[in-house]
This record gives sequence, structure tokens and C-alpha cells, in this order.
Amino acid sequence: MKRKSSRAVQPSLRPRLRITSGKEIAFGPGKAELLSWVAKTGSIGQSAKRMGMSYMRAWSLVQTMNSCFRQPVVRAARGGRERGGAQLTETGWRVLALYQHMEQAALKAVRTDWRALQKLLHG
Amino acid sequence: MKRKSSRAVQPSLRPRLRITSGKEIAFGPGKAELLSWVAKTGSIGQSAKRMGMSYMRAWSLVQTMNSCFRQPVVRAARGGRERGGAQLTETGWRVLALYQHMEQAALKAVRTDWRALQKLLHG
Repeated sequence: MKRKSSRAVQPSLRPRLRITSGKEIAFGPGKAELLSWVAKTGSIGQSAKRMGMSYMRAWSLVQTMNSCFRQPVVRAARGGRERGGAQLTETGWRVLALYQHMEQAALKAVRTDWRALQKLLHG
Repeated sequence: MKRKSSRAVQPSLRPRLRITSGKEIAFGPGKAELLSWVAKTGSIGQSAKRMGMSYMRAWSLVQTMNSCFRQPVVRAARGGRERGGAQLTETGWRVLALYQHMEQAALKAVRTDWRALQKLLHG
């Protein structure tokens, strides 16, 4: 709990926006990262690998998103030759863009307070 | 994963601001709630109870905060007759106020995007 060495690193702030729908986490930082990887790699399997999670875990996160949004966010072909071949739908792109913009807006909005808070921290 | 009943509840957004210092979480939603309870109850034990955590867990969170900030955020008398008698320091009050203001500012900053995103969700 008191690793002196950890103090050398500058304190950092990360706004994590968590969207819940009933008991489900419909969207959040992890799911946003997953969508980004799916957009980049075109594959749930590749995305899972980059994020250090199992294919089944990534698949399950996609299923949760697809069930929480009115339209699917990822169109995926499960199994087959191109196991996990996947792409963002129009809704997927829109959700990702809105979320990323929210993250940036949140970070910008707290900047002044964060500077004040940072001065109170070891760093 | 597909509980229909969970759809009845309006989707909600919570900005969780996590402040890391090296490998430690110096401050975040849980620690902010703990400080609020300490301010209200004047006791780590009472605060732990309200938050459904053990006394040792709450005590450990306080220790982490106190070691991450330049000045302690909670002044606590451990054990004794008034087990866990505790109060926020000036730094503690300041940290809590800054953090709560950051949360409000973040929520306000994302409001427009959140409305747009909400329309894409079941709810």
C-alpha cells in the first residue's frame, strides 16, 4: 500500500463513463475499446487478443451491447472460416463517436479542478 | 445477459473519475463516498457499515488516500473507546469538494451527447 517507487509516476486522471441499462453495463471504457479494435481489425478474435481477453468474453460483450442498443453495434459472423469476422454497424460507429466525444468533453470540463487537485497529490 | 425485465429501467450514465498515482487508485467514486460518510458520521466504522464494507477495508482505503496526498485527508484515532473516531482534514474537505465539482462538471459537459446516445438505447 505504500510503495515509495509508485510515487515517481505523475498522477493521472481517467474519466470512465459507465452507461447502465437495468443491471447491464450497456457501454463503458472496455466496450468502447473493444469497438475500436473491431473497427481496426475487422475481427472479434483479433480484438480479444489485443485486449488480452478470451474470444468468448469479447463475444459476450458484443452480445450485451447488441442487446442493449435498439440496433446492433457490431455485425459478426461467428465461427466459420473467418472466425469472428466482424464490423461496426452505422449505429456502432455512431455510439463509438459519441462516447469518445463524451470522454473528451468530460476531460476538458474537469481540467481546472484537476490541476488544483493534482497539486494536493504527491507526484 | 438478455433479461427483458432489465430493459424497463431508464438507461443511466455515471461518470466515474479515477485518479491513479503510480499503481494506486489515489481517489475515485468509492473513496469519495467514503469521505462523504466520514464527514457525516465522524467514524470510519460507521462509514464502513453504511457502505457495506469491513472496518479494515475502509481503514485501508483511508491509508491509501493519506499516503497518496501530500497532507492526510482523514484524521483518525484507531481503536480505543471511540473505535474509528475520524474527521476530514482541511485537505480532505478540499479534495472532496473538488472531486464532487469535477463529477458535476463532467456530467454537464456530456449532457448533449448523452441525450443522443440515450436515443440509441432501449429504455
